[in-house]
Amino acid sequence: MSSSVPSVVVQTQARLDSLTKPPGSLGRLEEIVLRLAAIQQSDRPLTDRKAIYVFCGDHGVTAEGVSPFPSSVTVEMMRNFVAGGAAISVLCRIQAMEPVIVNAGAAEGSESIPNVLQRRIAPGTRNFAVEPAMTRDQAQAAIALGRQLAGDAASRFDLVGLGEMGIGNTTSAAALLSAFTGADPGLTAGAGTGLTPDRIRHKAAVIRRALALHQPDAGDALGVLAAVGGFEIAAMAGFLVQASRSRLAVVIDGFPCSAAALAARALAPTALDTAFFAHRSAETGHSLLLETLGASPLLDLGMRLGEGTGAALAMNVIDAAARLFAEMATFEQAQVSGRR
Amino acid sequence: MSSSVPSVVVQTQARLDSLTKPPGSLGRLEEIVLRLAAIQQSDRPLTDRKAIYVFCGDHGVTAEGVSPFPSSVTVEMMRNFVAGGAAISVLCRIQAMEPVIVNAGAAEGSESIPNVLQRRIAPGTRNFAVEPAMTRDQAQAAIALGRQLAGDAASRFDLVGLGEMGIGNTTSAAALLSAFTGADPGLTAGAGTGLTPDRIRHKAAVIRRALALHQPDAGDALGVLAAVGGFEIAAMAGFLVQASRSRLAVVIDGFPCSAAALAARALAPTALDTAFFAHRSAETGHSLLLETLGASPLLDLGMRLGEGTGAALAMNVIDAAARLFAEMATFEQAQVSGRR
Repeated sequence: MSSSVPSVVVQTQARLDSLTKPPGSLGRLEEIVLRLAAIQQSDRPLTDRKAIYVFCGDHGVTAEGVSPFPSSVTVEMMRNFVAGGAAISVLCRIQAMEPVIVNAGAAEGSESIPNVLQRRIAPGTRNFAVEPAMTRDQAQAAIALGRQLAGDAASRFDLVGLGEMGIGNTTSAAALLSAFTGADPGLTAGAGTGLTPDRIRHKAAVIRRALALHQPDAGDALGVLAAVGGFEIAAMAGFLVQASRSRLAVVIDGFPCSAAALAARALAPTALDTAFFAHRSAETGHSLLLETLGASPLLDLGMRLGEGTGAALAMNVIDAAARLFAEMATFEQAQVSGRR
Repeated sequence: MSSSVPSVVVQTQARLDSLTKPPGSLGRLEEIVLRLAAIQQSDRPLTDRKAIYVFCGDHGVTAEGVSPFPSSVTVEMMRNFVAGGAAISVLCRIQAMEPVIVNAGAAEGSESIPNVLQRRIAPGTRNFAVEPAMTRDQAQAAIALGRQLAGDAASRFDLVGLGEMGIGNTTSAAALLSAFTGADPGLTAGAGTGLTPDRIRHKAAVIRRALALHQPDAGDALGVLAAVGGFEIAAMAGFLVQASRSRLAVVIDGFPCSAAALAARALAPTALDTAFFAHRSAETGHSLLLETLGASPLLDLGMRLGEGTGAALAMNVIDAAARLFAEMATFEQAQVSGRR
């Protein structure tokens, strides 16, 4: 990294302090501007071109009854994304963000949905309660998919939010969190789309059994992803690895997306250097996951929908920060008196 | 209140649960929709027409050295608001909100600024460290001003954010909080625009002295406002009183605005029935003030700028909630399977 980084940050801080507001009074919005400036190596960071990448995948572990919704909902929701009726579709529309729906590994039927980036590794993972979710080659292919998309996104967008859709993927995310940290699944498994306490205990037991079966080595991130990951999660991990190398600012959504961040950091220590954490999800394991990552998310609105919806709302805050920085008058321009 | 309120809420909840998302998964956004529906008595609440009212006033107590900025900044910033260079100007522009700058009582020079709603009660309050900030008649006039503006706003806007500008007004707000709750000024006085710890102690001492001088009666809200209030704060209190009667949804910004909410509640117990609290300010007394009001703000971004900037960001979340509610597809429309 060149010595221009500190210089950019110093210049950005100087401009922040020249704007017509008490120094520091925009709080975290000022931190956001400084971070964007460092990421983009520019003292006028941009957020004009925004996108949400929604990575979709199905999960064989749904055979264990870990979701109250049938796994057909993944493909049905992919249709809803492109038809414009899903929550993330509405947010993208009203916030002028381009939705990019990526089929990383959804079930049969998903391959023919139009306006989806069709990059399926396989039609869903295998049931990790009884066998590895995927082969190491498949995990590697999913990571490569995400990396390739991030490299492409870096030339098209200033700010990208990550989101996901995949019935069963909070089970995979909880398993990843337990595998990487050693935390008991009783602490990482949550309600997902709405399990009862009794079914949450069942979900935790399924994960506990899977971890005992696969004995994943936390030092082997690829192996952990292959054992209990998902195609959409591995692809998001790859996206993060490449985004940091391409200096693309990314916004991480909720629980499955943060699990991808944990995997990404295990794959490459610098993977989160360009990431913002959008929000604290209401999903049980998310606070532990954020703590593990040392992340302080921007929002805490009790959301647990996924799809990148939390990322989209946080991107509004990031966008506002950049626009304030670009468009506010300085004390000199506005002829406002400074401190006495 | 008619019996249609519960019916509207029941209908709104039913539609919320019909949308393509797990029930409750939009968290506080769903609470927002239910509250908007109850406020507007409509199962399709609107947020299309939005405005920020920035109430401006000057404070005689600045003679005591309670702000690091000269009091001339109030009028200078009013010029910046209408010129489009202030933080709130930028946020209004990018979020399509109409800025309404109200001169409730700013110093000489403010009366000639164009594009300001010129409704000045007096050119600043008197120094409440040595005499009442205003007469009871002036306090009443400021409240009436706010009430009249809210009545007007109710026919023009769906959602209104309140903000303020007034060098010295965190001193007034802290004095009001202490007067209404009995909390020592050491707990309510903060850094404002950037006082040092030593100067904050001085600010607290000024307030302590003023309260000992005026002995305001917490049961006499008008008297408390007259003793240590500000024109912009009293006007915001009046605005809230009328907004609740006119069923206008309002968004309360930071510390001075929340102090107005405290005064409004003392003037009329139902004054906050249509209010949302935008954010937790970094200003010292704000958390105590929010706790006193039983308020859970939507955002916590360490901001302490005022002007309605926190309200504006929260209005984005409220707007997103309403748009999601209006535009998302139902399970039936999108042919997505429900829970098993």
